[in-house]
Amino acid sequence: MTHPADDETRLVPADQSDEPGNSDLDSDRIDTILDAVEAGDARAVAEALEPLHPADISDLLEQISGPQRHALLTLYPAGIDGEVLSELDENLREEIIEALPREALAEAMRELDTDDVVDIIEDLEDDDQAFILGALESDDRAAVESSLAWPEYSAGRLMQSETVSAPQDWTVGETIDHLRTIDWLPDQFYHVILVDERHRPTGHATLGRVLASKRDVALKDITEDSFRTFEASESETEVALVFNKYHLISTPVVDDAGRLVGVITIDDAMIVLDEEHEEDMLRMAGVNEESSLSDRIVDTARGRFLWLFINLITAIFASAVIAQFEDAINAMVALAVLMPIVASMGGNAGTQSMTVAVRALATRELTGQNTRRVIWRELIVGLINGSAFGLIMAGVAGVWFGVPMLALVIALAMVATLTAAALSGIVLPVILDKIKVDPALASGPFVTTVTDVVGFFAFLGLASAILL
Amino acid sequence: MTHPADDETRLVPADQSDEPGNSDLDSDRIDTILDAVEAGDARAVAEALEPLHPADISDLLEQISGPQRHALLTLYPAGIDGEVLSELDENLREEIIEALPREALAEAMRELDTDDVVDIIEDLEDDDQAFILGALESDDRAAVESSLAWPEYSAGRLMQSETVSAPQDWTVGETIDHLRTIDWLPDQFYHVILVDERHRPTGHATLGRVLASKRDVALKDITEDSFRTFEASESETEVALVFNKYHLISTPVVDDAGRLVGVITIDDAMIVLDEEHEEDMLRMAGVNEESSLSDRIVDTARGRFLWLFINLITAIFASAVIAQFEDAINAMVALAVLMPIVASMGGNAGTQSMTVAVRALATRELTGQNTRRVIWRELIVGLINGSAFGLIMAGVAGVWFGVPMLALVIALAMVATLTAAALSGIVLPVILDKIKVDPALASGPFVTTVTDVVGFFAFLGLASAILL
Repeated sequence: MTHPADDETRLVPADQSDEPGNSDLDSDRIDTILDAVEAGDARAVAEALEPLHPADISDLLEQISGPQRHALLTLYPAGIDGEVLSELDENLREEIIEALPREALAEAMRELDTDDVVDIIEDLEDDDQAFILGALESDDRAAVESSLAWPEYSAGRLMQSETVSAPQDWTVGETIDHLRTIDWLPDQFYHVILVDERHRPTGHATLGRVLASKRDVALKDITEDSFRTFEASESETEVALVFNKYHLISTPVVDDAGRLVGVITIDDAMIVLDEEHEEDMLRMAGVNEESSLSDRIVDTARGRFLWLFINLITAIFASAVIAQFEDAINAMVALAVLMPIVASMGGNAGTQSMTVAVRALATRELTGQNTRRVIWRELIVGLINGSAFGLIMAGVAGVWFGVPMLALVIALAMVATLTAAALSGIVLPVILDKIKVDPALASGPFVTTVTDVVGFFAFLGLASAILL
Repeated sequence: MTHPADDETRLVPADQSDEPGNSDLDSDRIDTILDAVEAGDARAVAEALEPLHPADISDLLEQISGPQRHALLTLYPAGIDGEVLSELDENLREEIIEALPREALAEAMRELDTDDVVDIIEDLEDDDQAFILGALESDDRAAVESSLAWPEYSAGRLMQSETVSAPQDWTVGETIDHLRTIDWLPDQFYHVILVDERHRPTGHATLGRVLASKRDVALKDITEDSFRTFEASESETEVALVFNKYHLISTPVVDDAGRLVGVITIDDAMIVLDEEHEEDMLRMAGVNEESSLSDRIVDTARGRFLWLFINLITAIFASAVIAQFEDAINAMVALAVLMPIVASMGGNAGTQSMTVAVRALATRELTGQNTRRVIWRELIVGLINGSAFGLIMAGVAGVWFGVPMLALVIALAMVATLTAAALSGIVLPVILDKIKVDPALASGPFVTTVTDVVGFFAFLGLASAILL
């Protein structure tokens, strides 16, 4: 370990603590920095950046333009420390790592806890990886390498290797004395982990309980009643969901033999959960899940092209349905005017059920236990709203075109389409989830196809049968 | 304070810790419990429920049907303790609180930390509130009442009033001795907060640093360099974003005079952030943000009706555009077949930009600094994909209908629509945000209207001008 406890260099001075808002990076400060960059005044840039938190420096780099970023980095490479690199958006981070002098990069990496080094290094090219590993002290290198040996997106990658543990028969006094003798401690730790003679965790005690207990109290008498561990091979998504569900703060990670190999803290779990949410939201809208505002334009366009292309196929499919009814449209052009309303309402009702379903699947609220009941609910909700909008549209179409039978046709089509939409919005994500396809990614095109096809077919088919 | 530290009763025994998955509530156990409920076997129900974590009991109650829930509660009212109530979904919680015997409710409330009591009590009717306040011990009642005096969704409502503070001139030894003498401590605390003689926080030290330092070290020499406080009147959303951005673990809350009145911990911030994400996702899909799988069916239908109704208005508006071109459709029915493709592609491209924009606004990534650049990016992305799909659709329409000028018309319409979609997808959320309307809630209908109107008008208008 190479992180003496007093090396914790947060940059925000205490007297800024009462600043309002969620950022110490206000537009005045950005202007000051950009003015200094433009003037080529390295000293002024350094002065303006120094009081900022690494998260703010990272935000600044993400928000300014490419040329401004380049100029800033040239003037003040020392501003990019390990913490700033950790905070940066992945694409931008790679760009900046390439641009950094090798010495500065090595120095930045040595400052970080091993979990942050792993987070940065796992996305880099082989030669950059090798360079950074070579720059680390040998203990840290070993910890990073053993973390990298676990699969991507596993608990083993997420954990920090620095742990604070004690033999399970120690007292509070022995523990405190031991902690006082060692010259490093992780930046963040919230429990003392009790381990047996084979270094397997058997419980943990919060630091609060350790601090508040008399010296002769046995550690094992103040452990938390609820205790769990994660296997290093578990997925980070599962880990994050368990943290969220059981309100965990820090949890030991064990290898196949049950030995303590690391610890995951809530802030890491929170980041994973945040990313999962963002991915689900973007995937549902057909946006490449790795997209960000600092991507290159062609990457953004290409990322969105695929989903638009899939949508095009489903739209052509729906058009082919319309083409079957050309005679009907020729006979009554009002059908062409009204048919997009049916499809649009179906699409929106489908999106409503689908979003609820995808979210409930992601948070594990939709289970084998309640699936049938939830499908039933959606079916009834679809029937209720289908009937309501059927009545409304019958009135609109009747007044607009003055053809009573057209009003009847659109009313029936509305009921059929909104019911099919509600049903497909829940059933398709559930099926996709069962066959291990991400419902957030794949549900949209399927649901749209169903609602378009049912919408056009019901409306134009009923019109052909009843009106012509 | 009425929470002796040893009163922390988590129910999962340590030997379940290596259970796989994210839940100790597997379908076998649910079956066992439901069988026991059906058999009316109170003892078997109690045995099956007892080892479960409160979060699992809450999940169980949310997943089973209404009659099963009623039967379970009748057989085993003692299973619903304060922790379980805390975990429950809001609607269900109200139902269960109404059903609980008053004694059991009072007992459940007395177990909880004040922030959890506030979370439960703030949604209840006045008489239930009064009953619960009356059931609390006087210290807790005072803390809950003063928390309730802050506005809803403020830091003051989110904080717990139980704090661990020390005079700023104390040493580590004095602090530890003091902690050992007091007979209660909050369930969760991660810092000792240093306060001046007027009880205003001046810094805080992590428990890890306190534990690892010698007795004669001054507290103020081991405080964290980065320190901030929240005003009790700040919004909980801002608080959650700041926790996430700066990776905070616990942060003091102060009143108008700067005096320490409580502390917010990361787990509370995580819950707020989680809710914000869920709300944004559901709002964008036009689903009432308070909806959940345990809502009543009529409430769900009504919640979705409004948004479908707004969509209906915009769809009728788009249809009115089509109606202007009835002659063109009469002259060439292929227009009616192809026009939904243009509208559908526009709608999807608009949703892509809009989702990115809404998300970036929510996480404060889209700022005054980069708005112009991001709009410019979206415009170019729209042009690129508009041109690509213009070419593709020209090919499709040419092959399908064999009319070269129709191919030209749909190509031009595609470029216009996808560009308008990309642009409105970013500009409309930004404008809504500027005029303080929630972009997640309101962007969808506006963007859809723009893409539908532009799509139909461009395609049918160009067709009228070029083809007829």
